Parts: sequence; C-alpha cells; structure tokens
Amino acid sequence: MPSITTIGFDADDTLWHNESIFEDAHRRYCELLARWHDADTVERTLFATEMRNLERFGYGVKSHALSSIETAIALTDGAISAEEIRAIVDLAKGMLDHPVELLEGAAEVLPALAARHRLVLITKGDLRDQERKVRKSGLEAHFEEIEIISEKDTSIYRRLLARHRIAPEEFVMVGNSLKSDILPVLDLGGRGVYVPYRTTWEAERADPPTDGAAAGRFFTIPNLLALPQLLERIANGHS
Amino acid sequence: MPSITTIGFDADDTLWHNESIFEDAHRRYCELLARWHDADTVERTLFATEMRNLERFGYGVKSHALSSIETAIALTDGAISAEEIRAIVDLAKGMLDHPVELLEGAAEVLPALAARHRLVLITKGDLRDQERKVRKSGLEAHFEEIEIISEKDTSIYRRLLARHRIAPEEFVMVGNSLKSDILPVLDLGGRGVYVPYRTTWEAERADPPTDGAAAGRFFTIPNLLALPQLLERIANGHS
Repeated sequence: MPSITTIGFDADDTLWHNESIFEDAHRRYCELLARWHDADTVERTLFATEMRNLERFGYGVKSHALSSIETAIALTDGAISAEEIRAIVDLAKGMLDHPVELLEGAAEVLPALAARHRLVLITKGDLRDQERKVRKSGLEAHFEEIEIISEKDTSIYRRLLARHRIAPEEFVMVGNSLKSDILPVLDLGGRGVYVPYRTTWEAERADPPTDGAAAGRFFTIPNLLALPQLLERIANGHS
Repeated sequence: MPSITTIGFDADDTLWHNESIFEDAHRRYCELLARWHDADTVERTLFATEMRNLERFGYGVKSHALSSIETAIALTDGAISAEEIRAIVDLAKGMLDHPVELLEGAAEVLPALAARHRLVLITKGDLRDQERKVRKSGLEAHFEEIEIISEKDTSIYRRLLARHRIAPEEFVMVGNSLKSDILPVLDLGGRGVYVPYRTTWEAERADPPTDGAAAGRFFTIPNLLALPQLLERIANGHS
C-alpha cells in the first residue's frame, strides 16, 4: 500500500475527554429523577428517547438536553417541576462550559505528527460546541482542515476525502469509535487506528472488523503515545 | 472590477421561508404564556434570553427551544407545568419537521445561474437541520459547495473564500441579511446583493452601507427573479 500522507483524527474521546462529561451529567440527571425511578430505568428510557430523536435532533449537548427534558416529563407523568426542568437546562449549560481536558499523548504527539503529515480533524456533533472545543483544546493550529459533520458513514467519508483530494490508500483515521471512525474508512480502502476510550456510548458500539479484507489496515493502540511508532512501522512495511 | 465567477447564496429567508416558521412558533408560544404575560413581554424576554445564550448555544431551532423553555420557567416563576414545557419541545419538533417552501424565483433562477457560474451555499445555523433543509429544497445539485457555519463575519468569509480559492473581487453574495450576508462581503472587497425578506429577526438587523467605499458593489433587488438581469448588467459594466 502507498505510504500515509494524511492522518484524520476524531475529536471527542480521542483527543479529549467527552463521554466522562456526559456520564457526570447522567449521574446528576438520575439523582433528579430518583424519587420516581431507578437509574437503570432512567438511563434506558433516555437512550430510547435519544435514538427516536436522533434523525431529527442530531448529536450534541443541546439534542441531549431536549431529549432529557422530554424523558423526564414522560417518566414522571408530568409531575416534575419547572424548577427541576430548569436544572436539566443548567446541566446542559455546564456541559457546554466544561473545560477541554486533553487525553494522554494528544499534546505531545500532534505537533510531532503535523511536522511530517497533513492532519485533518473530523468530528461529528454540534457545530458551535465542536468549534469551541477545538479552540479551547489548543490543538487547532496542528490541523490543516477541520471538518465538523452531522454523521460519519462511508458515503460522507468518501465525499470528504474527495473534497480534499485525499486518496483513501494514503489516509489513516484515528479514533475511539469502531462504528464512526474505523469501519467506514476501512470500507473505502483506507487504514484505521482504534484507540479505545474507557467507555463507549451505546450508540457507538460495534464489533471490530473480522474479515480478511481489512487485514494489515486495522490497528489498535492503547493511547495516542503509541501512534508515532505505529505509523513508523506502517511506513517501513512492518505492519 | 473583474467579472463574477462565483455566486454565494444564503439559505434561510433567501432561498426558502424560515422566519415565518419562527413567527408561527412564537405566536403559539405567546398563547401558551398568555395567562401570565402579554405577548410583547414574552417576545422581549425570550429575545434577551436568546442573546444571552447565543455564544453558548449558537443559532437554530434547538437553541431556540432551550431558550424558550428557560424563558417560560423564568416568566412564570416556575408555575408553568411540565405538560406546557412538553408543548414547547413539540413546537421545536414541528419546526424541524416543517416542509421547505421555496421563495419566489429560487427554483427558476438557480439552474440558469448554475450553468454559467459556480454556486456556493453559505448558511449558518444547526448542522443537521440546515443539511436536511438543503436536501428537502431540491436545490442541492446546483451548488458546488455547501458551507454550514456557526457565524457569518468578515474573518469567517475570508477563510471560506481562501479555502475555495475564490477572489473576493470575483465573488457576489446574495442574501436577506445585511449584517450576515452583505456587510462582511463588502468589507472584503466583494459584491453584495440584498434581497429583503418581508421580516427580519431582530438580531440580524443592520443599516445598509452608506460610505462610498461600497459604491458599485452593493445592490438591492425585490426577489430572486431580478438576479439574472442584475448580474448581466454588472457583467456589462452598467451596474
């Protein structure tokens, strides 16, 4: 395979913590509804609401907040107070205001890789929130392109690579979601480096590729610190 | 000035109705709160909440819904019921599900212009909602690029034009907002065609350019049907 010219990075839970902010908000949301239901029921119902609203609302904190309000009203048969609903809105504001905490290796590895490769950030979610996190991360300058998209599937990656004139064979995508970051890129003939986060949102779960077609193109590393060495091994053909 | 190679179009209230959907939602929102406050107070307080939340939430229906909920709780001192808050969430869903109704001339003029110019759609707002409206509009195929951005100011237009290698002198932006579509592009040395919609959201109001610097680069037309003739006049130097 040709050598890698361009590295795509996912953002949330690949470069910085995100799911941990949602977990914290969920814990407080479950406490708010504890008078009515146990945490399992709350979590399960909220997830079902989010999935039902996904096509309409998309990803991100604001969508999550609206689904949380809808779920709270349904789960309490309308008995939840306006003040408690305001607390859900405030939870969302707290999530949007949360500082960006980089994951291990991000600050060290990105400048080094940017010196030898073209780096592209590819993230899905809410436009303004993702832009804000990129700015707050201090990593913005290392990326030649920042793409905030509403969904990550094969056809969207195809369009995106074509737009930036990147051959899939020269592209590797690095991310924590097999479903969104790895499988669609393998599908196009590119490479994928999976960097698991300690937890994965239910909607992002997928099985790793098992078929031989992805052999030599799919890699797993424990954290970003292992990325430069892996890329060197790939460059030397010892993948 | 050089001839125009690229035409930028705003979307909401330039190609299709949008503000009218918000007006309708506002009317129903004011009815919901009529037991507590008159419509003027409701509108004024909602607008203040939206402006306070703008940096954090950004534009679009979901941001509007969260600000509407926050305002309703504040304006009723928490006396609004959960069922009434659910009605606000349902209003937002109705707005997202609303059909796209093209403005006069859009369906006729765009294919004709696309045959002779490069067309670019430049819209701000919620990523998923704007994408959905572009798809529903049936106009998607006429655009070479679709840019959904979180804000429209001079520096963002500068970056965007550079990214697509468009010289400002060869670019004209067509839109209904002097503030977002016209003034920043004039500022960069491009041309602007203002197509007023019958109403303008308070946050988008601005005075037309008065200084001589924009002379010969700022135009106003009553609707999109007048655009091809204006562009011809500009091409022939009779602006």
